[in-house]
Amino acid sequence: MDFYDYEPRLRRPPRMKTPELQRDKHLKHMIFASQFDRDLLEHLASVADLIRVLARDKAGSDFLSTQLSEKRAMLYFTQPSTRTFLSFTAACQILGITVNEVRDPSLSSEAKGESPFDSIRMFSSYFDLIIMRSRIPNFAECCAYLMNDLEDFNQRDVPIINGGAGTDEHPTQALLDIYTIQRTFQFTSPQEMDGHFFAPSARYESSSASRARFDELRERPEYSGLTRGLNNKEYCFCGDIGRGRTVKSLANLLSLYDDVTLHFVSPQHPKLGLPGELQNRLLNAGARVLTHDSLESLVDGVPVIERADCLYMTRIQQEYNEPGDADSFRNINFDNYKLTPDLVARMKDYAPILHPFPRDANFGEIPPTIDTNPRAMYFRQARNGMWIRAALLAYLFNVDRDIASYYRRNFAEYTSYAAANSTT
Amino acid sequence: MDFYDYEPRLRRPPRMKTPELQRDKHLKHMIFASQFDRDLLEHLASVADLIRVLARDKAGSDFLSTQLSEKRAMLYFTQPSTRTFLSFTAACQILGITVNEVRDPSLSSEAKGESPFDSIRMFSSYFDLIIMRSRIPNFAECCAYLMNDLEDFNQRDVPIINGGAGTDEHPTQALLDIYTIQRTFQFTSPQEMDGHFFAPSARYESSSASRARFDELRERPEYSGLTRGLNNKEYCFCGDIGRGRTVKSLANLLSLYDDVTLHFVSPQHPKLGLPGELQNRLLNAGARVLTHDSLESLVDGVPVIERADCLYMTRIQQEYNEPGDADSFRNINFDNYKLTPDLVARMKDYAPILHPFPRDANFGEIPPTIDTNPRAMYFRQARNGMWIRAALLAYLFNVDRDIASYYRRNFAEYTSYAAANSTT
Amino acid sequence: MDFYDYEPRLRRPPRMKTPELQRDKHLKHMIFASQFDRDLLEHLASVADLIRVLARDKAGSDFLSTQLSEKRAMLYFTQPSTRTFLSFTAACQILGITVNEVRDPSLSSEAKGESPFDSIRMFSSYFDLIIMRSRIPNFAECCAYLMNDLEDFNQRDVPIINGGAGTDEHPTQALLDIYTIQRTFQFTSPQEMDGHFFAPSARYESSSASRARFDELRERPEYSGLTRGLNNKEYCFCGDIGRGRTVKSLANLLSLYDDVTLHFVSPQHPKLGLPGELQNRLLNAGARVLTHDSLESLVDGVPVIERADCLYMTRIQQEYNEPGDADSFRNINFDNYKLTPDLVARMKDYAPILHPFPRDANFGEIPPTIDTNPRAMYFRQARNGMWIRAALLAYLFNVDRDIASYYRRNFAEYTSYAAANSTT
Repeated sequence: MDFYDYEPRLRRPPRMKTPELQRDKHLKHMIFASQFDRDLLEHLASVADLIRVLARDKAGSDFLSTQLSEKRAMLYFTQPSTRTFLSFTAACQILGITVNEVRDPSLSSEAKGESPFDSIRMFSSYFDLIIMRSRIPNFAECCAYLMNDLEDFNQRDVPIINGGAGTDEHPTQALLDIYTIQRTFQFTSPQEMDGHFFAPSARYESSSASRARFDELRERPEYSGLTRGLNNKEYCFCGDIGRGRTVKSLANLLSLYDDVTLHFVSPQHPKLGLPGELQNRLLNAGARVLTHDSLESLVDGVPVIERADCLYMTRIQQEYNEPGDADSFRNINFDNYKLTPDLVARMKDYAPILHPFPRDANFGEIPPTIDTNPRAMYFRQARNGMWIRAALLAYLFNVDRDIASYYRRNFAEYTSYAAANSTT
Repeated sequence: MDFYDYEPRLRRPPRMKTPELQRDKHLKHMIFASQFDRDLLEHLASVADLIRVLARDKAGSDFLSTQLSEKRAMLYFTQPSTRTFLSFTAACQILGITVNEVRDPSLSSEAKGESPFDSIRMFSSYFDLIIMRSRIPNFAECCAYLMNDLEDFNQRDVPIINGGAGTDEHPTQALLDIYTIQRTFQFTSPQEMDGHFFAPSARYESSSASRARFDELRERPEYSGLTRGLNNKEYCFCGDIGRGRTVKSLANLLSLYDDVTLHFVSPQHPKLGLPGELQNRLLNAGARVLTHDSLESLVDGVPVIERADCLYMTRIQQEYNEPGDADSFRNINFDNYKLTPDLVARMKDYAPILHPFPRDANFGEIPPTIDTNPRAMYFRQARNGMWIRAALLAYLFNVDRDIASYYRRNFAEYTSYAAANSTT
Repeated sequence: MDFYDYEPRLRRPPRMKTPELQRDKHLKHMIFASQFDRDLLEHLASVADLIRVLARDKAGSDFLSTQLSEKRAMLYFTQPSTRTFLSFTAACQILGITVNEVRDPSLSSEAKGESPFDSIRMFSSYFDLIIMRSRIPNFAECCAYLMNDLEDFNQRDVPIINGGAGTDEHPTQALLDIYTIQRTFQFTSPQEMDGHFFAPSARYESSSASRARFDELRERPEYSGLTRGLNNKEYCFCGDIGRGRTVKSLANLLSLYDDVTLHFVSPQHPKLGLPGELQNRLLNAGARVLTHDSLESLVDGVPVIERADCLYMTRIQQEYNEPGDADSFRNINFDNYKLTPDLVARMKDYAPILHPFPRDANFGEIPPTIDTNPRAMYFRQARNGMWIRAALLAYLFNVDRDIASYYRRNFAEYTSYAAANSTT
């Protein structure tokens, strides 16, 4: 049980690893975004939709908090992260999972010469789930194998969730991005979707409101071809494409859908542009892939900013600069990768603006003046992360079906609404 | 959404701000002590009294913990504070609120260039309440405005509670100080008030015990004019008056009551004495205000230490010394601002000694030998902070009435007692 | 209330202190391993056995979590410890106790000149239990006396649990070591004892499985004298004997049993070998005590490694090296104090290998290749710590009887099994 022992397994292509991370075609560990397929993405989104409705109601919320009240989670986040950490924490709490954390590596026993695998086995002794973000490359994957080996020896093992580490994958970020896009392309008006004080009865009526909005959009000649769902759309990524693991994971998931165009807008620099390997994978998956150096680039005479059905902005991740990078970036005009109110005004009415956050207030890829624009979805996106992570946990521990039947029994009058909205 | 944008609102006088922090005459955010009026102070005290009785009972305690079990709080305390932090934490837990914390600013996304307002919006995405203490001046107030602006845009907003930051206000400290004085001036014997192992039946009898004690005190000629409640009393503050934000907030609240005399005992030094602005405000509010340089100062021939109905000791806050202060303090005889057993023995029998804590063991403003004196209320004061903060949370989230009716239904036999004691 | 005031009480021999830490022959505070007697050890083990069975069941687990749901614990761990901290945390959570922590001393009010006893009184104001590990020698013991003094003054006091500090005692580590040995010498097969996915029905059958295994072992000529329980056994400790507080506490507890032989295997060095004082105490208690410098040392012609019924490995605690120690250790062949697969193969079939953990991956006192050997009990030992600490908490707060009667009512069919296994 050393990193050395896991080497051969780490080197395999992802599709060979997927079966090991499942039991009876059901996820056991959540390590890579490639473990998701379209069915699972749709299922998790529908569970998240139910959870968020239940959570608005005191009785529904109390029901949810009994579902996994016997579980204790360890959030082992030795690489700093506030956002993902808090989002997972809240997701656990919604389902009643008790949250524990180890965040400061200097507090851990590693100072006494303990192997990181012994630490993980300690966590799996006391807790029922490990959500982890570590500086050690591929550590979450190794831990999943460790747990599988323990299972083989009939010893206690628990599920591992990759909380996104270093340059590794960040699968639950991709999940919340997809979920946000799924909700947007239901074409429910955003206020109703996330309204804090809306009573369930108001939500019920949003079913017709949603139909009305979708029909209204389609009556306009320029949107006459609009369809519900993620198929038949143009997605635009802008900023730090080369070093953005969220871009990579999300683009891969989008390529699962039909008739998808992916625009990548970034400086023409080997570190920041679309990596060739990713481009090939996306093309193989059947997506159309286009690269640009500006949001004004023309495709068939129309600027990308006006074509995009969805715009995914990113932060230039200066913390990943290597020696010499700052120098070689000097001639880049980074203003091309910042959004302005004028650019936003030219976007399609319904096109959401996403950002994995945090955004850089000094750089200004999205200035705060845009926050009140109805297209700005990045704060809702964060809250969606909480719901979809709760859905993932409910699924992993097999309480998703119980939640759905509670919903049907107690929120029966909304079922038709939910049904209407879940047909993306 | 920048500090700059909030400037004009920050500069208004407090009474113009109060309405914005309310909804339908009910507090939404808790930012300033001046948001409290006498009615609210009495109401919160009575809720706190009910909560502490319920919490002593397993069923009552379990009832309380269901009241807000669907809420998740963020305690954002980037300025270190153990006492206030733990007190709020316990208060949340009593009502079933799940507590989350961010305390180490180096763990936060601010290192990646994130604006502090984006951090707050992240918290408001995942949590239902933000209790905060930050190094940034007026940050809690700005956050309340941010939430109000979000409300205007029909976006998710949550209540903000000021946990007391830097030289800002510390309104819940003032609240617990007032609550401790309210309880003391009910003239219930302290053992019964806070007894750990007393059964409710014992408390019931304290109703007559309380009456007995009050009558007993009044039979003594020197206390014949004694009344229940905060009116008609002399309050003495001693120590670091100039830099003590708790002194300022508490004195302001005491000036709401009738026939109140406020003594301020401190070194005659511009940094440590009563600020002129505060003095004027208290005089305008109708209080009598007297300043002294010793607890032995005579007023109408009687030393302050013997006149005081209540003594509020404070720590000399050396951490706020500016360059040159230590030098200019050199000739001060600080022994005048330390309590001794002899001084305490000369105090009125019923006069409580308070201290916002921590006390300074090296300086010794209250030596531990005084801790067993029945006038020493400073440890009970800390525990009162937990109860009154729970009452504030119950009030903010509108479960105070439900708690009161549960109490009436299940602790009916004690109602007469509670009624007797709530008439201060 | 100063350390000075506690000096006379600290200097008394342990047996004079024990009564003060009890109320009506029931533990109030848990400070020293010598507070345990055989009856209490057996009682706690049987409560732990019930808790672990209940915790496997959703209804049982939910029942447990209501038992102490009105209690809030403070884990005051200013000396770093992940393992003990998490184990206590999980134990609290199993019974529904809300966990709070103070771990970073720089966050505490001590920076403002607060006495550590004021900090403890603050904790006892907000919380119902203090579990502590501090750098201050004997601090937990002093805090227990502080609480007792408060009780005498009719003020709020709470139980104190020593979480093991510095060179002080670590009584709950000894408790979990004993519990692990108790379970091993029930001769239930380990897979069944700790199986994660085993249904209660499977456990029920283990009753006969256990009998079968014990009889099977006894049929072999070399194990014909084998008995259930801790009596009549040879225990071997190996490694850092001199500085291992867990060795000291466990050896003392083992000496409570009948016909016990204790082997201590360590380098012949005054810092690392068996201290004379401990040796005398064990001899006085009636144990046979033998010291060796290798696991190959012969006793009656048989090497210690082959004689031991139980092997307790330890880490060489380099962090306790004093100046000059490293030099004086230079000629020691530390390989003699490392386990190898060959050594393990020569051990008795049923003899468990224990280790208080963390183990030192660089030193290698137990190489990971041994982890899959059925004798390796050190990971189960960690999990046992959680169960036995939960049992201790249940006992301290007097819910152990309620847990037992719930078990009898709802898991009636397993009673015979439990009975069979609790007769050690």
